[in-house]
Amino acid sequence: MSGTAQIGVTGLAVMGRNLARNFARNGYTVAVHNRTTAKTDALVEEFGDEGAFVAARTPEEFVAALERPRRLVIMVKAGEPTDAVIQEFAPLLDEGDVIIDGGNAHFEDTRRREKELRGRGIHFVGAGISGGEEGALNGPSIMPGGSAESYASLGPMLEKIAAKAKDGTPCTTHIGPDGAGHFVKMVHNGIEYADMQLIGEAYQLLRDVAGYSPAQIADIFRTWNTGRLDSYLIEITAEVLSHVDAATGKPFVDVVLDRAEQKGTGRWTVQIALDLGVPVSGIAEAVFARSVSGHADLRDASRHLAGPTARKLREDEAPAFADQVEQALYASKIVAYTQGFHEITAGSEQYDWDIDLGKVAAIWRGGCIIRAAFLDRITSAYEAQPDMPSLLSDKSFAEEIAAAQDDWRTVIATAVAQGVPTPAFAATLAYYDSLRAERLPAALTQGQRDYFGAHTYHRTDREGTFHTLWGDDKSEVEN
Amino acid sequence: MSGTAQIGVTGLAVMGRNLARNFARNGYTVAVHNRTTAKTDALVEEFGDEGAFVAARTPEEFVAALERPRRLVIMVKAGEPTDAVIQEFAPLLDEGDVIIDGGNAHFEDTRRREKELRGRGIHFVGAGISGGEEGALNGPSIMPGGSAESYASLGPMLEKIAAKAKDGTPCTTHIGPDGAGHFVKMVHNGIEYADMQLIGEAYQLLRDVAGYSPAQIADIFRTWNTGRLDSYLIEITAEVLSHVDAATGKPFVDVVLDRAEQKGTGRWTVQIALDLGVPVSGIAEAVFARSVSGHADLRDASRHLAGPTARKLREDEAPAFADQVEQALYASKIVAYTQGFHEITAGSEQYDWDIDLGKVAAIWRGGCIIRAAFLDRITSAYEAQPDMPSLLSDKSFAEEIAAAQDDWRTVIATAVAQGVPTPAFAATLAYYDSLRAERLPAALTQGQRDYFGAHTYHRTDREGTFHTLWGDDKSEVEN
Repeated sequence: MSGTAQIGVTGLAVMGRNLARNFARNGYTVAVHNRTTAKTDALVEEFGDEGAFVAARTPEEFVAALERPRRLVIMVKAGEPTDAVIQEFAPLLDEGDVIIDGGNAHFEDTRRREKELRGRGIHFVGAGISGGEEGALNGPSIMPGGSAESYASLGPMLEKIAAKAKDGTPCTTHIGPDGAGHFVKMVHNGIEYADMQLIGEAYQLLRDVAGYSPAQIADIFRTWNTGRLDSYLIEITAEVLSHVDAATGKPFVDVVLDRAEQKGTGRWTVQIALDLGVPVSGIAEAVFARSVSGHADLRDASRHLAGPTARKLREDEAPAFADQVEQALYASKIVAYTQGFHEITAGSEQYDWDIDLGKVAAIWRGGCIIRAAFLDRITSAYEAQPDMPSLLSDKSFAEEIAAAQDDWRTVIATAVAQGVPTPAFAATLAYYDSLRAERLPAALTQGQRDYFGAHTYHRTDREGTFHTLWGDDKSEVEN
Repeated sequence: MSGTAQIGVTGLAVMGRNLARNFARNGYTVAVHNRTTAKTDALVEEFGDEGAFVAARTPEEFVAALERPRRLVIMVKAGEPTDAVIQEFAPLLDEGDVIIDGGNAHFEDTRRREKELRGRGIHFVGAGISGGEEGALNGPSIMPGGSAESYASLGPMLEKIAAKAKDGTPCTTHIGPDGAGHFVKMVHNGIEYADMQLIGEAYQLLRDVAGYSPAQIADIFRTWNTGRLDSYLIEITAEVLSHVDAATGKPFVDVVLDRAEQKGTGRWTVQIALDLGVPVSGIAEAVFARSVSGHADLRDASRHLAGPTARKLREDEAPAFADQVEQALYASKIVAYTQGFHEITAGSEQYDWDIDLGKVAAIWRGGCIIRAAFLDRITSAYEAQPDMPSLLSDKSFAEEIAAAQDDWRTVIATAVAQGVPTPAFAATLAYYDSLRAERLPAALTQGQRDYFGAHTYHRTDREGTFHTLWGDDKSEVEN
């Protein structure tokens, strides 16, 4: 017995509902199911004319409605709810069927689920989906991980519903086996955190140092959005900053409580980077900045702390400073992406995923929150040199940073002098300067470690592992 | 049947051996055991005259040698080896006996083990021990977590073998239940990472910006060590920097490969802080700095990157700059400790440990790697205000930072201009400036999140959760 629906979606909260509609609008017959049937009914009633829906009231009905091999998308909360739904549906499926988890699962969970279901002959695809509600409906960026076989069956459908880059390429590709898709989505979100924090710091500098109003800063961002910073986040920043609160007549940004929230993927990006030994300081500072903003008790207790007495800019100095901030923002952004792509490289090596970094950059060009003109450049860079150790190895990015660096340094030094916090600007510059440093104080660190813990060290002039007898005659022994 | 040994140590690698000797030298009869008996024999043969040892060849002999309630210290590798030893000994023990894990266990493992053994009537004490080999022998700082009952039996012995602060207080105390001791030890190590990184950055600035030689910098550190920076790490930094490599005649620090290694506790400190929502940017930058130093491929690929062209200091400007670096180091150090203590506060709340922060500072004053005159000050600060939201709430620390901040800013701005990486200096200053900021760009972040994901926001002027209909007429709705 086999049904007629090419795809099924279970879990019809806003993301699931919009994804189902997206499939239907693209000509697919879509089986829809929800734990409480009211949502299923509402979907069909409200949007039934958009395409062919098959409303299923029970898991059995849902599964029966699908053509074989069955493809069913789970759109429920990450964690236990996802496991519960998998356990509910897996026994109803046959060998070769495909379960797609479109939530923000931790990639380790995806690896576990994929392995378990593979043992039962079922393909499990962990697909990161970016673009929010609007993207789910009109074209998200989709990052599916799983078997090549499952992508052969599923890929054409995902390519149809995904966003399209300006050159027409669908914003989805087979990322790699098991957890690769959710891993890449996690890093995407980590980069998004960094992007947003850098924009926030640029805004604060334009406000506090240059003295611009939110409306003026919105205009500056609009201008930036016509250049190399052209991106969705810059665009909406201008929208947010130019918005005036109807209730008070004040700039909207001034009536919003300055306490940023987070949902976990930024934190995961940093935690996993630490496990992989990848420095992602720009992303970490973005996550920490949200934490700091939320600690009302610490902030209240700290308002009395002394600030600097540096002079503010004169009005005629402001436009030149704004140009410098653009340079700083662009340079820091390159570094933040460098760190994120390094994490993907390391994850791909660690888990044998063989991820194509150029394709990752390519499918982020549309649909997702960090979509930006800039990603065309990253795509080209990785196409030209797929094994680049770092995005900074790309000649044109290196040249741009070289051109930007004096302004980058001036902006951070100004922020430091004036007491405007720029943790992500400063962290990305320190990373840049660390990488290009001829010598790092790590040699001293190793000397200290050898002193107090006999942890040994290597030498610059010959192979081997050495220890100095610090408490004795300070002679050196080879271990 | 009961033996005569008041304490037993199993696992006789250097840390276990030295701890056993420490107990014996303090008049305790010590049962000693090792998986391979050669180490047991060697210990008794070499150090038997230091005190009363009972050599046990088997787990049964070991357990039989102990008086009741039995107290046995496990000194094996963290992770599976620890579990294996626990599973080997637990069946031989009786209700009320005490197992002490003196390794660097992850506190979550300690919580799991404590819970399991509690169910079998056995006390499990996870004890962080700092001070390296030398400390284990002559007096470490000991951070035991576990039941109050176990501390009543064990505490007096630990107090005897622990280091003593200058005022005579033993450097050990009952930290709290289950994983509290290993948690505090973890944060201790995280702070140690930050301390070492800050010292490394100060060294690099004195070298690259001020133009001092390692020997001259050693002298500067020796001078600092007579003031408020007086600490073990500053002392050994001077030792390491003044050391000359015998093979080459060069400064030792110049022949050591600048690739710093790590063993995990620094990384854990940051990962757990992220889970707890505690910003520990100074510690994170220290961990990342070690990672960066180890990425030889990235560093090799980055040496061509453009650096600044700022002028170096003149020789006559160097001494004043060195004084400024001392101010910066001290201010950043206060912030790094502030972040570490915040993490302990948050952990204590999360796990209901009721940790006394003043006592934690007090037992770090001797024996451990971060021992420092400075910790007397932290002890007093928490004794005066046990519920301080932050170390920066202490008036005298706030005053010192106020006095240091101009120099702190100058040093970081100089580093930024000259291309010397100072990630931890910069991160700690940004944290300070974030905490005291009247408004943070987090308001813009929330606005962006509301725009692209309908994540809602709070307002400054009234209660409630709000969303702006960005894609519609931009009116505000209350959720």
